[in-house]
Amino acid sequence: MKYFDDIQVGDRFELGSYRFTAPDIKAFAGRFDPQRFHLDEDEAKRSHFGALCASGWHTAAVFMRLLVAYRKREAEAARRRGEPIATVGPAPGFRNLKWQKPVYVDDTITYASEVIEMRASNSRPRWGLMTSRASGVNQHGETVMTFEATAFVERRPGQA
Amino acid sequence: MKYFDDIQVGDRFELGSYRFTAPDIKAFAGRFDPQRFHLDEDEAKRSHFGALCASGWHTAAVFMRLLVAYRKREAEAARRRGEPIATVGPAPGFRNLKWQKPVYVDDTITYASEVIEMRASNSRPRWGLMTSRASGVNQHGETVMTFEATAFVERRPGQA
Repeated sequence: MKYFDDIQVGDRFELGSYRFTAPDIKAFAGRFDPQRFHLDEDEAKRSHFGALCASGWHTAAVFMRLLVAYRKREAEAARRRGEPIATVGPAPGFRNLKWQKPVYVDDTITYASEVIEMRASNSRPRWGLMTSRASGVNQHGETVMTFEATAFVERRPGQA
Repeated sequence: MKYFDDIQVGDRFELGSYRFTAPDIKAFAGRFDPQRFHLDEDEAKRSHFGALCASGWHTAAVFMRLLVAYRKREAEAARRRGEPIATVGPAPGFRNLKWQKPVYVDDTITYASEVIEMRASNSRPRWGLMTSRASGVNQHGETVMTFEATAFVERRPGQA
Protein backbone atom coordinates (compact mmCIF):
# COMPACT_ATOMS: atom_id res chain seq x y z
CA MET A 1 0.00 0.00 0.00
CA LYS A 2 1.08 3.59 -0.64
CA TYR A 3 1.46 5.97 2.26
CA PHE A 4 -1.53 8.15 3.15
CA ASP A 5 0.36 11.22 1.85
CA ASP A 6 0.80 9.63 -1.60
CA ILE A 7 -2.91 8.84 -2.14
CA GLN A 8 -5.39 11.37 -3.53
CA VAL A 9 -9.16 11.65 -3.79
CA GLY A 10 -10.08 10.17 -7.18
CA ASP A 11 -7.33 7.52 -7.14
CA ARG A 12 -8.80 4.32 -8.47
CA PHE A 13 -7.60 0.78 -7.84
CA GLU A 14 -8.61 -1.90 -10.36
CA LEU A 15 -8.89 -5.10 -8.36
CA GLY A 16 -9.62 -7.59 -11.14
CA SER A 17 -12.53 -9.68 -12.37
CA TYR A 18 -14.31 -12.82 -11.24
CA ARG A 19 -16.72 -15.11 -13.12
CA PHE A 20 -19.54 -16.56 -11.01
CA THR A 21 -20.16 -20.12 -12.23
CA ALA A 22 -23.23 -22.14 -11.25
CA PRO A 23 -21.29 -24.62 -9.04
CA ASP A 24 -19.58 -21.72 -7.30
CA ILE A 25 -22.87 -19.85 -6.71
CA LYS A 26 -24.50 -23.01 -5.31
CA ALA A 27 -21.53 -23.92 -3.09
CA PHE A 28 -21.53 -20.52 -1.38
CA ALA A 29 -25.32 -20.43 -1.06
CA GLY A 30 -25.47 -23.97 0.32
CA ARG A 31 -23.18 -22.88 3.11
CA PHE A 32 -24.36 -19.32 3.85
CA ASP A 33 -27.53 -18.32 1.98
CA PRO A 34 -29.60 -21.42 1.13
CA GLN A 35 -32.48 -19.71 -0.62
CA ARG A 36 -34.07 -21.43 -3.61
CA PHE A 37 -33.06 -18.76 -6.18
CA HIS A 38 -29.38 -19.28 -5.23
CA LEU A 39 -29.51 -23.10 -5.27
CA ASP A 40 -31.74 -24.46 -8.01
CA GLU A 41 -32.11 -23.34 -11.63
CA ASP A 42 -35.78 -24.38 -11.96
CA GLU A 43 -36.86 -22.78 -8.71
CA ALA A 44 -34.88 -19.64 -9.56
CA LYS A 45 -36.77 -19.40 -12.89
CA ARG A 46 -40.02 -19.20 -10.96
CA SER A 47 -38.65 -16.58 -8.50
CA HIS A 48 -38.68 -12.81 -9.01
CA PHE A 49 -35.00 -13.04 -10.13
CA GLY A 50 -35.99 -15.20 -13.13
CA ALA A 51 -32.75 -17.23 -13.11
CA LEU A 52 -30.11 -18.62 -10.75
CA CYS A 53 -28.12 -15.79 -9.16
CA ALA A 54 -25.40 -15.36 -6.55
CA SER A 55 -25.96 -14.50 -2.91
CA GLY A 56 -25.20 -10.82 -2.34
CA TRP A 57 -22.84 -11.89 0.44
CA HIS A 58 -20.96 -13.97 -2.11
CA THR A 59 -20.57 -10.93 -4.38
CA ALA A 60 -19.21 -8.97 -1.41
CA ALA A 61 -16.87 -11.75 -0.24
CA VAL A 62 -15.31 -11.95 -3.71
CA PHE A 63 -14.55 -8.23 -3.47
CA MET A 64 -12.55 -8.96 -0.31
CA ARG A 65 -10.70 -11.82 -1.99
CA LEU A 66 -9.65 -9.61 -4.90
CA LEU A 67 -8.73 -6.72 -2.59
CA VAL A 68 -6.40 -8.93 -0.54
CA ALA A 69 -4.81 -10.34 -3.73
CA TYR A 70 -4.38 -6.80 -5.13
CA ARG A 71 -2.65 -5.58 -1.96
CA LYS A 72 -0.31 -8.58 -2.00
CA ARG A 73 0.65 -7.90 -5.63
CA GLU A 74 1.24 -4.22 -4.85
CA ALA A 75 3.35 -5.05 -1.78
CA GLU A 76 5.47 -7.50 -3.78
CA ALA A 77 6.01 -4.98 -6.56
CA ALA A 78 7.07 -2.32 -4.03
CA ARG A 79 9.44 -4.80 -2.37
CA ARG A 80 11.03 -5.59 -5.73
CA ARG A 81 11.56 -1.87 -6.33
CA GLY A 82 13.08 -1.53 -2.86
CA GLU A 83 10.30 0.84 -1.77
CA PRO A 84 8.79 0.89 1.73
CA ILE A 85 5.25 -0.44 2.17
CA ALA A 86 2.68 1.46 4.24
CA THR A 87 0.50 -0.45 6.67
CA VAL A 88 -3.29 -0.38 6.26
CA GLY A 89 -5.38 -0.97 9.36
CA PRO A 90 -8.35 -3.31 9.07
CA ALA A 91 -11.60 -1.57 8.13
CA PRO A 92 -13.90 -1.65 11.16
CA GLY A 93 -16.99 -1.81 8.98
CA PHE A 94 -18.81 -0.53 5.92
CA ARG A 95 -21.55 1.88 5.00
CA ASN A 96 -24.34 1.78 2.47
CA LEU A 97 -23.80 -1.59 0.90
CA LYS A 98 -26.14 -1.82 -2.09
CA TRP A 99 -26.85 -4.75 -4.37
CA GLN A 100 -28.22 -2.92 -7.42
CA LYS A 101 -28.57 -5.89 -9.80
CA PRO A 102 -28.53 -9.67 -9.49
CA VAL A 103 -25.34 -11.52 -10.43
CA TYR A 104 -26.44 -14.35 -12.73
CA VAL A 105 -24.63 -17.56 -13.73
CA ASP A 106 -21.45 -16.85 -15.70
CA ASP A 107 -21.63 -13.10 -15.13
CA THR A 108 -18.14 -11.64 -14.85
CA ILE A 109 -17.87 -8.93 -12.22
CA THR A 110 -15.04 -6.41 -12.37
CA TYR A 111 -14.22 -4.87 -9.00
CA ALA A 112 -12.63 -1.50 -8.23
CA SER A 113 -12.09 0.80 -5.30
CA GLU A 114 -12.01 4.59 -5.66
CA VAL A 115 -10.82 7.03 -3.03
CA ILE A 116 -13.57 9.51 -2.13
CA GLU A 117 -12.17 11.18 1.01
CA MET A 118 -8.79 11.57 2.74
CA ARG A 119 -8.32 13.13 6.12
CA ALA A 120 -5.66 13.20 8.80
CA SER A 121 -6.48 11.50 12.09
CA ASN A 122 -6.59 13.79 15.12
CA SER A 123 -6.41 10.95 17.61
CA ARG A 124 -3.63 9.01 15.85
CA PRO A 125 -1.21 11.47 14.22
CA ARG A 126 0.86 8.76 12.49
CA TRP A 127 -2.21 7.65 10.55
CA GLY A 128 -4.71 9.08 8.09
CA LEU A 129 -8.26 8.00 7.30
CA MET A 130 -8.98 6.91 3.73
CA THR A 131 -12.59 6.48 2.65
CA SER A 132 -13.15 4.47 -0.53
CA ARG A 133 -16.11 3.49 -2.63
CA ALA A 134 -16.02 -0.14 -3.66
CA SER A 135 -17.86 -1.26 -6.77
CA GLY A 136 -18.61 -4.34 -8.84
CA VAL A 137 -19.67 -3.97 -12.50
CA ASN A 138 -20.91 -6.78 -14.75
CA GLN A 139 -19.95 -7.53 -18.37
CA HIS A 140 -22.80 -5.26 -19.58
CA GLY A 141 -21.39 -2.28 -17.70
CA GLU A 142 -24.11 -2.45 -15.03
CA THR A 143 -23.14 -1.80 -11.42
CA VAL A 144 -24.15 -4.78 -9.27
CA MET A 145 -22.73 -3.74 -5.88
CA THR A 146 -21.31 -0.68 -4.13
CA PHE A 147 -20.32 0.19 -0.59
CA GLU A 148 -18.14 2.68 1.25
CA ALA A 149 -15.41 1.83 3.74
CA THR A 150 -12.96 3.82 5.84
CA ALA A 151 -9.56 2.49 6.88
CA PHE A 152 -6.51 3.83 8.69
CA VAL A 153 -3.49 4.21 6.38
CA GLU A 154 0.00 4.91 7.69
CA ARG A 155 1.44 8.38 7.01
CA ARG A 156 4.79 8.80 5.32
CA PRO A 157 7.49 9.02 8.03
CA GLY A 158 8.10 12.70 8.82
CA GLN A 159 4.75 13.86 7.37
CA ALA A 160 2.62 13.56 10.50
CA MET B 1 -42.67 -14.48 8.10
CA LYS B 2 -45.45 -12.50 9.79
CA TYR B 3 -47.35 -9.89 7.83
CA PHE B 4 -46.13 -6.30 8.04
CA ASP B 5 -49.21 -5.38 10.08
CA ASP B 6 -48.39 -8.00 12.73
CA ILE B 7 -44.82 -6.79 13.36
CA GLN B 8 -43.96 -3.96 15.76
CA VAL B 9 -40.93 -1.80 16.47
CA GLY B 10 -39.02 -3.58 19.24
CA ASP B 11 -39.90 -7.10 18.05
CA ARG B 12 -36.81 -9.24 18.37
CA PHE B 13 -35.98 -12.40 16.49
CA GLU B 14 -33.45 -14.78 18.06
CA LEU B 15 -31.70 -16.43 15.15
CA GLY B 16 -29.47 -18.90 17.01
CA SER B 17 -25.79 -19.36 17.76
CA TYR B 18 -22.73 -20.46 15.84
CA ARG B 19 -19.29 -21.56 17.08
CA PHE B 20 -16.36 -20.47 14.92
CA THR B 21 -13.80 -23.31 14.93
CA ALA B 22 -10.23 -22.89 13.66
CA PRO B 23 -10.74 -25.11 10.56
CA ASP B 24 -13.91 -23.19 9.71
CA ILE B 25 -12.23 -19.78 10.12
CA LYS B 26 -9.31 -20.89 7.92
CA ALA B 27 -11.53 -22.45 5.24
CA PHE B 28 -13.53 -19.24 4.78
CA ALA B 29 -10.44 -17.03 4.90
CA GLY B 30 -8.54 -19.24 2.43
CA ARG B 31 -11.33 -18.69 -0.05
CA PHE B 32 -12.34 -15.07 0.55
CA ASP B 33 -10.02 -13.21 2.95
CA PRO B 34 -6.53 -14.77 2.92
CA GLN B 35 -4.88 -12.47 5.44
CA ARG B 36 -2.32 -13.95 7.84
CA PHE B 37 -4.34 -13.29 11.02
CA HIS B 38 -7.24 -15.34 9.57
CA LEU B 39 -5.07 -18.25 8.36
CA ASP B 40 -2.20 -19.03 10.71
CA GLU B 41 -2.12 -19.14 14.52
CA ASP B 42 1.54 -18.10 14.84
CA GLU B 43 1.26 -15.21 12.44
CA ALA B 44 -1.98 -14.13 14.10
CA LYS B 45 -0.22 -14.03 17.48
CA ARG B 46 2.21 -11.49 16.06
CA SER B 47 -0.59 -9.37 14.50
CA HIS B 48 -2.56 -6.59 16.23
CA PHE B 49 -5.38 -9.13 16.84
CA GLY B 50 -3.10 -11.28 19.02
CA ALA B 51 -4.72 -14.59 18.01
CA LEU B 52 -6.43 -16.29 15.07
CA CYS B 53 -9.78 -14.64 14.32
CA ALA B 54 -12.54 -14.91 11.73
CA SER B 55 -12.90 -12.71 8.67
CA GLY B 56 -15.58 -10.09 9.27
CA TRP B 57 -17.25 -11.26 6.08
CA HIS B 58 -17.45 -14.73 7.59
CA THR B 59 -19.19 -13.34 10.69
CA ALA B 60 -21.67 -11.56 8.42
CA ALA B 61 -22.25 -14.59 6.15
CA VAL B 62 -23.11 -16.75 9.18
CA PHE B 63 -25.77 -14.18 10.12
CA MET B 64 -27.36 -14.76 6.72
CA ARG B 65 -27.19 -18.53 7.13
CA LEU B 66 -28.98 -18.36 10.49
CA LEU B 67 -31.54 -15.85 9.20
CA VAL B 68 -32.49 -18.13 6.31
CA ALA B 69 -32.74 -21.14 8.66
CA TYR B 70 -34.87 -19.10 11.10
CA ARG B 71 -37.28 -18.03 8.37
CA LYS B 72 -37.63 -21.62 7.15
CA ARG B 73 -38.43 -22.83 10.67
CA GLU B 74 -40.99 -20.03 11.11
CA ALA B 75 -42.60 -20.78 7.75
CA GLU B 76 -42.86 -24.49 8.57
CA ALA B 77 -44.39 -23.74 11.97
CA ALA B 78 -46.95 -21.40 10.38
CA ARG B 79 -47.76 -24.04 7.75
CA ARG B 80 -48.34 -26.64 10.46
CA ARG B 81 -50.74 -24.23 12.20
CA GLY B 82 -52.51 -23.65 8.90
CA GLU B 83 -51.59 -19.95 8.95
CA PRO B 84 -50.69 -17.93 5.86
CA ILE B 85 -47.04 -16.92 5.37
CA ALA B 86 -46.13 -13.38 4.36
CA THR B 87 -43.53 -12.87 1.67
CA VAL B 88 -40.35 -10.93 2.46
CA GLY B 89 -38.59 -9.23 -0.42
CA PRO B 90 -34.83 -9.53 -0.63
CA ALA B 91 -32.97 -6.72 1.17
CA PRO B 92 -31.30 -4.57 -1.47
CA GLY B 93 -28.38 -3.82 0.86
CA PHE B 94 -27.53 -2.71 4.36
CA ARG B 95 -26.19 0.26 6.27
CA ASN B 96 -23.54 0.83 8.90
CA LEU B 97 -22.01 -2.61 9.16
CA LYS B 98 -19.66 -2.53 12.14
CA TRP B 99 -17.26 -5.17 13.40
CA GLN B 100 -16.79 -4.05 16.99
CA LYS B 101 -14.66 -6.94 18.27
CA PRO B 102 -12.68 -9.79 16.70
CA VAL B 103 -14.26 -13.26 16.63
CA TYR B 104 -11.58 -15.63 17.96
CA VAL B 105 -11.29 -19.41 17.65
CA ASP B 106 -14.13 -21.24 19.40
CA ASP B 107 -16.06 -18.05 20.15
CA THR B 108 -19.79 -18.70 20.00
CA ILE B 109 -21.74 -15.87 18.41
CA THR B 110 -25.44 -15.48 19.10
CA TYR B 111 -27.29 -13.61 16.39
CA ALA B 112 -30.49 -11.60 16.61
CA SER B 113 -32.48 -9.12 14.57
CA GLU B 114 -34.54 -6.36 16.15
CA VAL B 115 -37.14 -4.23 14.39
CA ILE B 116 -36.24 -0.53 14.65
CA GLU B 117 -38.63 1.05 12.11
CA MET B 118 -41.82 0.11 10.28
CA ARG B 119 -43.39 2.21 7.58
CA ALA B 120 -45.94 1.71 4.84
CA SER B 121 -44.65 1.94 1.27
CA ASN B 122 -46.08 4.78 -0.80
CA SER B 123 -44.95 3.31 -4.09
CA ARG B 124 -46.07 -0.27 -3.37
CA PRO B 125 -49.25 -0.21 -1.27
CA ARG B 126 -49.36 -4.00 -0.78
CA TRP B 127 -45.99 -3.85 1.00
CA GLY B 128 -44.44 -2.23 4.04
CA LEU B 129 -40.82 -1.41 4.77
CA MET B 130 -39.27 -3.07 7.82
CA THR B 131 -35.90 -1.82 9.06
CA SER B 132 -34.04 -4.13 11.42
CA ARG B 133 -30.84 -3.99 13.37
CA ALA B 134 -28.85 -7.21 13.12
CA SER B 135 -26.40 -8.12 15.85
CA GLY B 136 -23.93 -10.80 16.85
CA VAL B 137 -22.87 -11.15 20.50
CA ASN B 138 -20.10 -13.43 21.82
CA GLN B 139 -20.15 -15.73 24.86
CA HIS B 140 -18.86 -12.84 27.04
CA GLY B 141 -21.83 -10.65 26.11
CA GLU B 142 -19.73 -8.43 23.83
CA THR B 143 -21.25 -7.25 20.58
CA VAL B 144 -19.01 -8.29 17.67
CA MET B 145 -21.10 -7.13 14.71
CA THR B 146 -24.10 -4.93 13.92
CA PHE B 147 -25.74 -3.60 10.79
CA GLU B 148 -29.09 -2.25 9.68
CA ALA B 149 -31.14 -3.52 6.77
CA THR B 150 -34.47 -2.62 5.22
CA ALA B 151 -36.71 -5.12 3.46
CA PHE B 152 -40.16 -5.12 1.91
CA VAL B 153 -42.65 -7.22 3.89
CA GLU B 154 -46.09 -8.12 2.54
CA ARG B 155 -49.10 -6.43 4.19
CA ARG B 156 -51.97 -8.48 5.56
CA PRO B 157 -54.62 -8.83 2.81
CA GLY B 158 -57.18 -6.07 3.23
CA GLN B 159 -54.85 -3.84 5.32
CA ALA B 160 -53.19 -1.91 2.52
